[in-house]
Amino acid sequence: MIHHSTTDAGTPAAAPAGTTAGATAGTARALAAELPGRVGEHVELAGWLHRRRALKSVTFLVLRDRSGLAQVVAPAGTADLPEETVLRVRGTVTANHRAPNGVELTGPAVEVLSRPVAAPPFDLFRPTVPASLPVVLDHAPVTLRHPRLAALHRVSAASVHGFRAALDARGFTEIHTPKVVSSATESGAEVFALDWFGRPAYLAQSPQFFKQTMVGVFERVYETGPVFRAEPHDTARHLAQYTSLDAELGFVADHRDVMALVREVLAGMTGAVAERAGGALAALGAGLPAVPAEIPSLHFTEAMRMLGADEPDLSPEHERRLGAWALREHGSAFLFVTGYPMRKRPFYTCPDPDRPEYSNSFDLLFRGLELVTGGQRLHRYEDCLAALAARGEPVGPYEGYLRAFAHGMPPHGGFALGLERWTARLTGEENVRRTALFPRDVHRLTP
Amino acid sequence: MIHHSTTDAGTPAAAPAGTTAGATAGTARALAAELPGRVGEHVELAGWLHRRRALKSVTFLVLRDRSGLAQVVAPAGTADLPEETVLRVRGTVTANHRAPNGVELTGPAVEVLSRPVAAPPFDLFRPTVPASLPVVLDHAPVTLRHPRLAALHRVSAASVHGFRAALDARGFTEIHTPKVVSSATESGAEVFALDWFGRPAYLAQSPQFFKQTMVGVFERVYETGPVFRAEPHDTARHLAQYTSLDAELGFVADHRDVMALVREVLAGMTGAVAERAGGALAALGAGLPAVPAEIPSLHFTEAMRMLGADEPDLSPEHERRLGAWALREHGSAFLFVTGYPMRKRPFYTCPDPDRPEYSNSFDLLFRGLELVTGGQRLHRYEDCLAALAARGEPVGPYEGYLRAFAHGMPPHGGFALGLERWTARLTGEENVRRTALFPRDVHRLTP
Repeated sequence: MIHHSTTDAGTPAAAPAGTTAGATAGTARALAAELPGRVGEHVELAGWLHRRRALKSVTFLVLRDRSGLAQVVAPAGTADLPEETVLRVRGTVTANHRAPNGVELTGPAVEVLSRPVAAPPFDLFRPTVPASLPVVLDHAPVTLRHPRLAALHRVSAASVHGFRAALDARGFTEIHTPKVVSSATESGAEVFALDWFGRPAYLAQSPQFFKQTMVGVFERVYETGPVFRAEPHDTARHLAQYTSLDAELGFVADHRDVMALVREVLAGMTGAVAERAGGALAALGAGLPAVPAEIPSLHFTEAMRMLGADEPDLSPEHERRLGAWALREHGSAFLFVTGYPMRKRPFYTCPDPDRPEYSNSFDLLFRGLELVTGGQRLHRYEDCLAALAARGEPVGPYEGYLRAFAHGMPPHGGFALGLERWTARLTGEENVRRTALFPRDVHRLTP
Repeated sequence: MIHHSTTDAGTPAAAPAGTTAGATAGTARALAAELPGRVGEHVELAGWLHRRRALKSVTFLVLRDRSGLAQVVAPAGTADLPEETVLRVRGTVTANHRAPNGVELTGPAVEVLSRPVAAPPFDLFRPTVPASLPVVLDHAPVTLRHPRLAALHRVSAASVHGFRAALDARGFTEIHTPKVVSSATESGAEVFALDWFGRPAYLAQSPQFFKQTMVGVFERVYETGPVFRAEPHDTARHLAQYTSLDAELGFVADHRDVMALVREVLAGMTGAVAERAGGALAALGAGLPAVPAEIPSLHFTEAMRMLGADEPDLSPEHERRLGAWALREHGSAFLFVTGYPMRKRPFYTCPDPDRPEYSNSFDLLFRGLELVTGGQRLHRYEDCLAALAARGEPVGPYEGYLRAFAHGMPPHGGFALGLERWTARLTGEENVRRTALFPRDVHRLTP
């Protein structure tokens, strides 16, 4: 039986006026993933027609909802429904060992909630994505429905949950800081200029100064939000907007306390992915890295010696080789490189008291790619002033930032982790544009 | 005994090289709030000198850390330490029924970790904030240390946690959407213009179109992030950047399913504030509103009749009167007003099928102020096109958005809640500038 609904809301018959259960408890509607436990029951499903499978003697409608797929024995009158038609289906959950998950819906009544007017640029039901990256991105509103592409973002969401939970459990306070600032101060990277009620302003490249300032208030803070880099580089690992997972904490002995926190946060993130997005990760054919109780660590000078190089910074090739070394020697997907030369780090970096040309800072490499940057910061007002003076930078643009230090700041440090890069590295995606829902880069401002 | 530390990190003596416990487990350092349970023990505290209390026979140092205040019997040599000096203090936890929390630290050794070079614009230890709003905001890096001002943001952080937890429990997926868009499409409000690698672009006024699109992928999504409104109005309830708590869900019968979800989310938010920021709320002298099992609801036309008015929208005075009515008649701090006239709602709003000049939308008033806007959206491609045409709007700027509808979208709806406004209303603050850490408005772009 097929019924084409005509009211705008897809006929509210199943949800009588006044009822509110649909949105919150889901009592009326069953999810595909629940069916194996409901054999023999008459249930209502809703979702998208993922694919039609025509066998010799029977045709199946495969329905996709947020929980997965359900096989429905196609009733007469459904032959003209294109994929992505939005359906409500009522039928009986019937065991069938040849069906996916061992169940299918039989004797169904199918109701069309909404009909597509165009076909996706490729079949969303194929196991892999048979399209180039530009096609995927240009058509993101529909291509993201491909279970494999959606899975990347389920992994991402679970990761952010793990980040926050690890920090919540350690007394951190979440903050929300301005994304528009009055001066382009942080690092040499390019900034986006903005018209702010007729005044020049800039998009924030990081919450760095704000999170440090907030150590003076809450001691331990984090933020999960967008940052903006006018990166002219069109590489597989740069985006002009990305989601930065930032944390900062006071009363550290030095950068090693920050590294210990990074370790705990990574464990929280992988744990949350296992718990909340294990199916998505498995669908991507990806495995979770073990987070060692102590992540191996190399000083920058040791790394250079090992690489047989003598440069002020690590190249991507260096990072790959070091990542391979950490895996080979320590069985670790993660490696800290500490003590980067001060001249490659921002002015607020705390120098190593024993070797002041090196810093109390670190990068974390994950599978041979820089994922996290962090370290101890200067915390004394006079040290901040001296560091700016030594670099020939004026004090004016940093006035708000320096104010916190004028009023007493504890030794502190923190780190930032790029979410899209994490998810890409975790899932084996080469390009961070696949792990942002709607990436923004030098060429791309839509959809 | 007083010791002035000289190393940059505030002497790592207490945290031997290699140890990582300080940052993560806090084993070395005790928090002020733990002292009542540790009488007789020798502990280490760290924090800011909140105030010096000189009595006739003894002087106390009151130390402030992220957990609260601790009274320390001042040793000799500390008379010159100004408030906000960052200290580490080691001493014995001693019961004293006259001390706050019944304990104080005796026989202490005090170490200075960092010294302020300026005094705050007002005493941070006074119970109230004796300064005007501009003074508070101009000096935010230090004035936010006032426990009363910090408490507002603890309430805010707990609220966001509750928002996410309520939605996580209901199968929602967190998303991160672009804050820079190619066209200024949503609503008539002013937008900020941006130079995007030489092309014009705009700051996103809301994640509206993206979250709707993502219903096609995840069915249920939320985002907690910044939105930008070039509001020229300098009012107590508008900010140019604020944190929007957005949710959207598919397969709703109509807007009442969304309202039911709002109810659950509000219960989650107040529950999280009680659990995680109860002390902060109490310090602010604020109480939590009960969230009724069913929040009272009035149709827009009924509200107008009751107000003796006949206008297309509610004024702030209308909202106040309706809020008072809900409290008086239903004992509820919350009131839904449903069915706003279609001409006052954006084009994507779903009309009431029975009275198409009114909408399947709502506002939620909280203590007489609009806090949430939401409703059911159009979900059929042809309805979206017709709605744009009826308003004389071109299709071009909406191309990415419409693409989702071309490929089949379910009946859906959602809502947005302004975090700063929520926190202000909850805590009794009149101005949302106090519930943003570093507010941005027509005049303010720093600190």
